[in-house]
Amino acid sequence: MTKHLYVGLDVGGTTMKAGVVDDAGKSLRAVSLSTEAHRGQEFGLERMCEAIRQAVAAAGLTMGDIAAIGVATPGTMDIPAGVILDPPNLKPWQNVPVREHVRKTFSLPTAFQNDANAAAFGEFWAGAGKDAHSLVLFTLGTGVGGGIIIGDLVLEGEHSHGAELGHMKIEMTNPRQCGCGRWGCLEAYASATSVVKRATEAVSQAGVKSQLRAYQNKDGGLTSRDVFDVANQGDKVAQKIVEDTAYYLAIGAMNMMHTIDPDMIVFGGGMIAAGAAFLERIRKFVKELAFPVPAEKTTICYAQLGSDAGFIGAAACARQLVLRKK
Amino acid sequence: MTKHLYVGLDVGGTTMKAGVVDDAGKSLRAVSLSTEAHRGQEFGLERMCEAIRQAVAAAGLTMGDIAAIGVATPGTMDIPAGVILDPPNLKPWQNVPVREHVRKTFSLPTAFQNDANAAAFGEFWAGAGKDAHSLVLFTLGTGVGGGIIIGDLVLEGEHSHGAELGHMKIEMTNPRQCGCGRWGCLEAYASATSVVKRATEAVSQAGVKSQLRAYQNKDGGLTSRDVFDVANQGDKVAQKIVEDTAYYLAIGAMNMMHTIDPDMIVFGGGMIAAGAAFLERIRKFVKELAFPVPAEKTTICYAQLGSDAGFIGAAACARQLVLRKK
Repeated sequence: MTKHLYVGLDVGGTTMKAGVVDDAGKSLRAVSLSTEAHRGQEFGLERMCEAIRQAVAAAGLTMGDIAAIGVATPGTMDIPAGVILDPPNLKPWQNVPVREHVRKTFSLPTAFQNDANAAAFGEFWAGAGKDAHSLVLFTLGTGVGGGIIIGDLVLEGEHSHGAELGHMKIEMTNPRQCGCGRWGCLEAYASATSVVKRATEAVSQAGVKSQLRAYQNKDGGLTSRDVFDVANQGDKVAQKIVEDTAYYLAIGAMNMMHTIDPDMIVFGGGMIAAGAAFLERIRKFVKELAFPVPAEKTTICYAQLGSDAGFIGAAACARQLVLRKK
Repeated sequence: MTKHLYVGLDVGGTTMKAGVVDDAGKSLRAVSLSTEAHRGQEFGLERMCEAIRQAVAAAGLTMGDIAAIGVATPGTMDIPAGVILDPPNLKPWQNVPVREHVRKTFSLPTAFQNDANAAAFGEFWAGAGKDAHSLVLFTLGTGVGGGIIIGDLVLEGEHSHGAELGHMKIEMTNPRQCGCGRWGCLEAYASATSVVKRATEAVSQAGVKSQLRAYQNKDGGLTSRDVFDVANQGDKVAQKIVEDTAYYLAIGAMNMMHTIDPDMIVFGGGMIAAGAAFLERIRKFVKELAFPVPAEKTTICYAQLGSDAGFIGAAACARQLVLRKK
């Protein structure tokens, strides 16, 4: 009997999530473990294998039921080599041979992918893009990540830097500095971090009245979620921050529509909790900015798989590995 | 005997160029005819067929020696349908069924492609990119065009708007207006037209000393070539314009390196007459702007096929059509 079950593992800075996924992209069962990167990469590699084992056990299966494994991690990385290089979100790991370790541990075909690319492939296979031929995903969180899928091609790039969409430059004259150190990157405008930063700047000006001030003193300080909430309550200052954020994201979308020209632009990540009204603002700006034909025909939507997109996409990479070998 | 000869035709606003190309991408013979778009699209379609016939005859061949034909035209277009829609550079043509007309006239497999995409495919097959797996081409002329090739994929986009690289937005605060009507497009900064415009603005300011003034009164007025020449003679104002142009192009390159992450970024079109020093300026800015790995590993170079790239690339599309049917 041919096995059509895959394990996907999505390794994040804080937690890792592993799940068994069937041939239609349906997650049977998933588990989460803390990553604890500070305990070092040997611990990390064993943790990954443990997450895979637990996911299989939770689904009532054994490793013998699994056709292949896919692992997605944050960069920097060498995707063809299956190695994490020097990941800012997984310090102090360096040059970690993830794919080889997992492959040898389980003696199963193992795919390796960037986490945002995997999330895009997950949405393409089983989420927002399941009827599309191509999509571009923007993941909106602390940073702005991205993934580009064209047909069955995950656009990894020749140097594992494909779809670093947060780091396209959209401003020259008066650029904000990005977390990457560069100036004028999309991420410096459209991440959750930037929403908070721009809101904080706005209320720091003398004479500005806003409910946002009250949130600055709460536990954990102001969050992007607060900014969206306060905007929904009618606060003009917060509304301007939200409006600008939609505009910046529309520029990111437009630049991809004039480059990749995909069937759909998908926004995912924590910030899409902002809801339908925010998506409508992005759509409005895209219509104003883009060429008429893509502006009319490109679907602009939210991701559907939430935090499962990464491991489902990693499983999709595992499946692709098996299908290509046939 | 299998035929391995193709005809490529590149239709431009002023002239069209057709050539017979062998299976290795070598042009055997090419001819140019004036396009005379104002005489209408029926005339234009017949003109295309005439150019194809003349190219075959000039190579000492008959149509029976040809395996397939490729036609490249400017947009707007519907590439899968083989139709030019409403081309600003071929007025008053509208909804011209180019591929069907050529296919029926010669009873040969006929491919249809955007002209800048075809030029990129030509450089990929037989020019600057012949050893690359992927490339992004920027064509620098009156406007800024583009083509993206990944493996054997010409990135046409889902709505025939792939690789409209002149129309990524790189400035929000103080954007220049683009020929397309939008604001802040790369083309508004980095085209030959923009070079002349920025130079004209610079010397229009009171107290600015520059040799560029002398060129404004010559026949045809100031050209981008003049700006580069005057810069090479040491004129500070012209040098600033050239330096800025290199910077803008480096932003375009960087945005593609963080999106497509190709093996190489290729600059083509009339403006590359600016020569090696200009290319070095672009490279310097790319190294400053891009992530370290792509900055180090991506080849930044000039196109090699000149005005033959379009018809050679159109022939490459014809060849691909035949190979895919096998």
